Amino acid sequence: MAEPGFLIDGPQYGNWSESLFREIRGAGIDGLHVTVAYHEDFRETVERIVDWNRRFETYPSLIMPGRCAADIDRARASGRTAIFLGLQNPSPIEDDIGLVEILHTLGVRFMQLTYNNQSLLAAGCYEADDAGITRMGREVIREMNRVGMVVDMSHSAERSTLQAIELSERPIAITHANPHAWHPVLRNKSATVLKALAASGGILGFSLYANHLAGGAACTLESFSEMVARTAELMGVRHIAIGSDLGQDQTDAIIKWMRDGRWNKSGSETPGLGKPVLPPQPPWFCGSRDFPNIRAGLRNVGFAEADVTAILGMNWYRFYAASFGPAAAQRSQAAR
Amino acid sequence: MAEPGFLIDGPQYGNWSESLFREIRGAGIDGLHVTVAYHEDFRETVERIVDWNRRFETYPSLIMPGRCAADIDRARASGRTAIFLGLQNPSPIEDDIGLVEILHTLGVRFMQLTYNNQSLLAAGCYEADDAGITRMGREVIREMNRVGMVVDMSHSAERSTLQAIELSERPIAITHANPHAWHPVLRNKSATVLKALAASGGILGFSLYANHLAGGAACTLESFSEMVARTAELMGVRHIAIGSDLGQDQTDAIIKWMRDGRWNKSGSETPGLGKPVLPPQPPWFCGSRDFPNIRAGLRNVGFAEADVTAILGMNWYRFYAASFGPAAAQRSQAAR
Repeated sequence: MAEPGFLIDGPQYGNWSESLFREIRGAGIDGLHVTVAYHEDFRETVERIVDWNRRFETYPSLIMPGRCAADIDRARASGRTAIFLGLQNPSPIEDDIGLVEILHTLGVRFMQLTYNNQSLLAAGCYEADDAGITRMGREVIREMNRVGMVVDMSHSAERSTLQAIELSERPIAITHANPHAWHPVLRNKSATVLKALAASGGILGFSLYANHLAGGAACTLESFSEMVARTAELMGVRHIAIGSDLGQDQTDAIIKWMRDGRWNKSGSETPGLGKPVLPPQPPWFCGSRDFPNIRAGLRNVGFAEADVTAILGMNWYRFYAASFGPAAAQRSQAAR
Repeated sequence: MAEPGFLIDGPQYGNWSESLFREIRGAGIDGLHVTVAYHEDFRETVERIVDWNRRFETYPSLIMPGRCAADIDRARASGRTAIFLGLQNPSPIEDDIGLVEILHTLGVRFMQLTYNNQSLLAAGCYEADDAGITRMGREVIREMNRVGMVVDMSHSAERSTLQAIELSERPIAITHANPHAWHPVLRNKSATVLKALAASGGILGFSLYANHLAGGAACTLESFSEMVARTAELMGVRHIAIGSDLGQDQTDAIIKWMRDGRWNKSGSETPGLGKPVLPPQPPWFCGSRDFPNIRAGLRNVGFAEADVTAILGMNWYRFYAASFGPAAAQRSQAAR
């Protein structure tokens, strides 16, 4: 039986297949944000979108393209999952701001301004120094705001993230990270960032990736759920959601690509992460099928039912509804 | 005062500017098919689409993106011209059938299978031999049918054109050409082709490009209008329209690019065409502003008012309405 609210997750970066789509459907996931690129250039990213077009054509009873929040309603009504595309790095726009609108037209709804390293737009969380949002970064944020592509700062450094929150005229997202105070790694976010994010109307997706969890894969459901409760107190329950960062059925090769891309020859040394291997998941969240455990965990730490529903999807739904269309100024212009 | 029916033309390949858009608006053109690529590869074509996105952003009171026939209604209602994108060659899809859907999503609604030469899909009208639609060509026609991109055979050879008409499950277009019997050049079409086109529900756009006109730029409005009347008798008045092939404000450079692209080093010898120079227009059709002359010419050779309205736009409108959406099989699948 379907839960009363929509179930929405993402990003996930699974090794997509019919069986994985069946698991996602079986889990009742109505909307899913998936990663289509890490270090790919524009042409390579288009080929990954072609892969998605082929999947939509091949599995029309399981998945459908997600372009706006209302597609989640349509997906639920037809027993499918609406798939929303996201980029973990701005490499797909190369040095060409016109590609923001092109990729939005092709379905991309999220773009990280950085992936760990300095990009043309901002600094990543593993750089020693963070000079903030670049000249091109300011232009691209404005363009993303205009067309309705969400600024995602999950892998960005602190100063760049705070500047992005301030510069963006529309709320931004940190789609997959956790509070630094709970698990102090460079990928997790300071209370300063999380408070600024919430104050600007933004949203945090809690990650279930072991490297972001206190205790790694040994993290307990209770510890995770308590962390969610503390973050709700810090940010407000309307500003938190799930961004599981699941990579089901993937191999170590995807981790090598994420971390090293083509930007180094010898294998990077990402601080504190060791070799590029796919880490194990905590036993209570091994796949999309385990969302009932998260639901139970949140109930057990005292969340009201309406808050559980908000965290597991309705907050994303409201954020999607406000974020994916053209900016209000554009809308009024088009209506003239 | 707006004429009762929509005025629709194309392709045109003007050197686009605010003044040209103002002329097109002043002429009351509600829908316009424009050429975005001749020999460009995918990445270059995307940049030409970026140029159009910039124009839509810069001149929102004059033009708007045209994606479906209903956009022509919206354009008329808001005093603008809906712009529909077309490719004169399949070079933008390279050797990648997935790019058909990608380019359709980006707004492309017409694609010629060849431009004068042999392509990966078919033979052009200046090749000595025509082996017909290729293996990839058959696949691409099926994919164009699926997504709603019109097969355009304006620059194709006879056998390839007849095969395309037969293979395509949806009506095709010859967007800009005239009857070979009226002016016997390789770019104009035989009665066999024109009858097969009409029998399959397809449509011919009459060209106003001097090389396609009997007498060239000295062609009279009476001769042109009589030719339209004879073609209406051959094909039926529902299967003819205007595809003016206007290149306003262009220079000889565009003709050089059309004819030679990058496929030869020394300048091609296109049979019967001489040097690559932009030919003069007949004095009664020098630009979009001169559509009233065509209207008068058609009236003068005895077309009923409803037929004039059909030829000047409503036939294109009906063809657009049937052609730009997903194939019926797709639509019923999506509705399941």
